[in-house]
Amino acid sequence: MSQPQALLFDVFGTVVDWRSSVAREAAAILSAEIDGAAFADAWRARYQPAMEEVRSGRRPWTVLDELHYENLQVVLQDFGIEAAPDDTLAELNHAWHRLDPWPDAVAGLQRLKQRYILAPHSNGNIALLVNMAKRAGLPWDVILGAEVVRAYKPLPESYQRAASALGRAPAQCMMVAAHNGDLLAAQAQGLQTAFVPRPNEHGAQQKTDLTPTGDWTIVAADFADLAVQLGV
Amino acid sequence: MSQPQALLFDVFGTVVDWRSSVAREAAAILSAEIDGAAFADAWRARYQPAMEEVRSGRRPWTVLDELHYENLQVVLQDFGIEAAPDDTLAELNHAWHRLDPWPDAVAGLQRLKQRYILAPHSNGNIALLVNMAKRAGLPWDVILGAEVVRAYKPLPESYQRAASALGRAPAQCMMVAAHNGDLLAAQAQGLQTAFVPRPNEHGAQQKTDLTPTGDWTIVAADFADLAVQLGV
Repeated sequence: MSQPQALLFDVFGTVVDWRSSVAREAAAILSAEIDGAAFADAWRARYQPAMEEVRSGRRPWTVLDELHYENLQVVLQDFGIEAAPDDTLAELNHAWHRLDPWPDAVAGLQRLKQRYILAPHSNGNIALLVNMAKRAGLPWDVILGAEVVRAYKPLPESYQRAASALGRAPAQCMMVAAHNGDLLAAQAQGLQTAFVPRPNEHGAQQKTDLTPTGDWTIVAADFADLAVQLGV
Repeated sequence: MSQPQALLFDVFGTVVDWRSSVAREAAAILSAEIDGAAFADAWRARYQPAMEEVRSGRRPWTVLDELHYENLQVVLQDFGIEAAPDDTLAELNHAWHRLDPWPDAVAGLQRLKQRYILAPHSNGNIALLVNMAKRAGLPWDVILGAEVVRAYKPLPESYQRAASALGRAPAQCMMVAAHNGDLLAAQAQGLQTAFVPRPNEHGAQQKTDLTPTGDWTIVAADFADLAVQLGV
């Protein structure tokens, strides 16, 4: 393995625990009686289909905050929740800006930052990723992701443009993700890969992405182990 | 004055001393006998005209590294320097990735980062700004600038898109620059403004931008003073 220069991180699920965080926010903002985890799951279930409209070209470029907002309105209906004021909807939509990191994430990133360029390469938009980072203390060097490269993962150009924006060859970049699919797409574009399982991303009953299913450059237990394996 | 949420920094001249740094690199890479400051000035003199080709639409979007590279070849000719190997040219072109910060810059930014979102909003491309930040220790939260907004300052859309990318209204952003012209353009788009003079940017004989020429939100002696005036 040649040493990478930049580490590109998937964010939702890999760096932050979106499910518990959105559940907490939904309960706090809507009602303590709501099943927050079910609400988070329902909202997240509409994530890939909404992006697919953009990926396919059926819809012009649209940032994730806007897709989240549209999806939220449908989920509220599905949950039988009456129309909320616009500012309540906006506040709830920004739950995705207030996701808590996994316990090992911040310390691991701080170690890795000593030697590597750290960037989120997420489908989240810039404002979402900046607000999240300021609140959670994620020490990014630069924010990449869909809004910068104008393509949602796992489109090939998403990974190519991220490496290019850093002035690096794909092989000088390592994609870090808890999702085998993200890594497979990154690997196909020549990036190195690191799998960090997050077995509770989808709750205790999670059945996907519990183990590596590809030939990844690194498999690490968490970000501390990733730092050790990357020599810092 | 309402409190801004994000500070957008001009970089070349405001955060870093491009002239001394490029002069040093040119002397080290080309020849100790070269007049490094004159070389830096000649290279920089081609900066605005090159960007103007892109701003005007006569030329498609082109990142600054590429404009710098083209300009470098002309300047080498003008200085009567024979064709250098490609890797020497590339190394010299990356002098712009290795610019030293002004003495007050890093400490000031570290203080400001406690309360504000800090972003370079520079005509430099992402790779240039990331490499510079890693080397110099500039603690950006996010890298904005021409490559992200696909427009060179001082085009109006440059400032509008930077605020928009952060999910902020223009008035929630403050442009920080040593150049009155940059601030005038930002102010016209509704941003707050901070002038920090850098009277030696162009050397001891500098005649421009020694004093504020507009009605700026803040005039600060340096980044430490800027932090004090912004309450951190």
